[in-house]
Amino acid sequence: MPASADTAAPVMGAPLGEDALAALTALVREDLEACNRLIVDRMQSPVALIPQLAAHIVAAGGKRLRPLLTLAAARMAGYRGTRHVALAACVEFIHTATLLHDDVVDESALRRGQASANALFGNKPSVLVGDFLFARAFQLMVEDGSLEVLRILSAASATISEGEVLQLVIQNDTSSTEAQYLAVIEGKTAALFAAATEIGAVVADRPAAEQAALRAYGHHLGVAFQLVDDALDYSAEQERLGKTVGDDFREGKITLPVLLAFARGNEAERAFWRRTVEEREQSGADLQQAIALMQKHRAFGDTVARARDYGAKALAALGVFADGAERRALAGIVEFCISRAR
Amino acid sequence: MPASADTAAPVMGAPLGEDALAALTALVREDLEACNRLIVDRMQSPVALIPQLAAHIVAAGGKRLRPLLTLAAARMAGYRGTRHVALAACVEFIHTATLLHDDVVDESALRRGQASANALFGNKPSVLVGDFLFARAFQLMVEDGSLEVLRILSAASATISEGEVLQLVIQNDTSSTEAQYLAVIEGKTAALFAAATEIGAVVADRPAAEQAALRAYGHHLGVAFQLVDDALDYSAEQERLGKTVGDDFREGKITLPVLLAFARGNEAERAFWRRTVEEREQSGADLQQAIALMQKHRAFGDTVARARDYGAKALAALGVFADGAERRALAGIVEFCISRAR
Repeated sequence: MPASADTAAPVMGAPLGEDALAALTALVREDLEACNRLIVDRMQSPVALIPQLAAHIVAAGGKRLRPLLTLAAARMAGYRGTRHVALAACVEFIHTATLLHDDVVDESALRRGQASANALFGNKPSVLVGDFLFARAFQLMVEDGSLEVLRILSAASATISEGEVLQLVIQNDTSSTEAQYLAVIEGKTAALFAAATEIGAVVADRPAAEQAALRAYGHHLGVAFQLVDDALDYSAEQERLGKTVGDDFREGKITLPVLLAFARGNEAERAFWRRTVEEREQSGADLQQAIALMQKHRAFGDTVARARDYGAKALAALGVFADGAERRALAGIVEFCISRAR
Repeated sequence: MPASADTAAPVMGAPLGEDALAALTALVREDLEACNRLIVDRMQSPVALIPQLAAHIVAAGGKRLRPLLTLAAARMAGYRGTRHVALAACVEFIHTATLLHDDVVDESALRRGQASANALFGNKPSVLVGDFLFARAFQLMVEDGSLEVLRILSAASATISEGEVLQLVIQNDTSSTEAQYLAVIEGKTAALFAAATEIGAVVADRPAAEQAALRAYGHHLGVAFQLVDDALDYSAEQERLGKTVGDDFREGKITLPVLLAFARGNEAERAFWRRTVEEREQSGADLQQAIALMQKHRAFGDTVARARDYGAKALAALGVFADGAERRALAGIVEFCISRAR
């Protein structure tokens, strides 16, 4: 696996897989705890339903990947103050707002293994509490006072919604292109990863090259993360482990595994994809058939290989920073994001 | 009508009713046209569905009341530059985002007399395009560069969602209080009116007293505006003119007319309100009965009288500014908002 060898090259000694997430979390533990306290503190409101609903998703113990990236990026860039804690909370608030709106949109029944806020509280409060968290994120940024951070995160927010709308536009359309798919995941996922890491350089007041490097790291990491996510939805191994697969398939979401299997399929196979993904006429055995076609055409493996390519670019972007615990931890996160796909 | 005499007192020569809106629009026509061009320009996106959907609501020719307030407030405060044009566009973008999210929430079939974006395009794009416009508003503010404007409009955005969530919480609950209702309309409506006028003083770099006065004007105007809106939903005159009435009634929204009629009603009447608003068991003649009870207990007229009280406070707040075309136009808008209720 040459891509794998590439990804390992730039940073030696990086931890692997789940250990990498644990290592990153341990490295910024105090900052993360301060960030979690701030999140709980600033999602309060005289309107009790807001913290009740927000707690269900924001305090439900996600892995806090995006704020972790902000915290570690700021430290790697040499920042020694505390502003990055509030900015990491902003990133998580924006992420949570998009989850709440995505739950409404997709009528997804489960999020992080629990009943979604949408299913429990209804669509109406989910949209409005998402709006509240989004506004609160901007209030926190204003308190911080950096127009550059505000520029980065307001642009990311616009790009996220563009990616999400484009995802709706190409949904159920098997004639969609890889370029369109890439634009979707660069918008809906990579934009916030890129912003989360870039603002680490901004609080540290680092030169433009380092800011651009941290942005590139986050962008490529985000693309890799989403590619793996989209592969996992068709993972035979995930299904064997009892994890949910097939959500994207049931919605007719256009992802790279589908585009690869469709492009490489014969006419009968293309008819299968048109019926199931385009017309959304699905029966019980169709998901198994979809997974079998992914395996036949190496669509799963090639999607993960594509993620490894992006991971290699993320690692390369870290090259401008000196070796150290933060750089090793951020390098490990690349492997963590990719190694989820087994 | 003593309240009416009060409202007329502070500013002589103000135009009345629809003429007031026309006068205000004429006064800032060039600025408004620049604002409209900027709105169309900045709602563009490579994702074509975004401007398509946004155009349906943002360019559909609403009266642009909120951006008009920003434009006129800035001029009254002595501002002679062009920054207020972009800030007025921000205010309209935020307003439009809340309309799009409100359409989703309420599944309202009509908005401004046209089919709602929600009904035409579906819930999913409406939520996401609302998010886009909200993010774009903050991008415009960042380009302007005033942290004070960012502070005011991010705080207003959080307050709007708090008001909207509280509205959901008290919906269908006839034991809700007038204080709760007031908190709802201060949040969902007055917060953005107050911000829209306050930022006029900020761009003009006026002292705190004038900023506070413009904020107070907008706040009281917004409360008056919403009180009248809530009265109109039970207006026999509106119904006679063929305009839509009864939307709030059908949803079981708790508004001041309902609270007044409920509080003043006998046991049989309270049972009527509990059945129709709380249980939402409604039949064809119930709206007529609701309007009849409003008339019996002067709930409609007293709601409008309350609006007049707030209008008087809005006018009083203009007292710190010198007489002039802008002050007369802004005074006229108070009468415009209230005189809709006939």
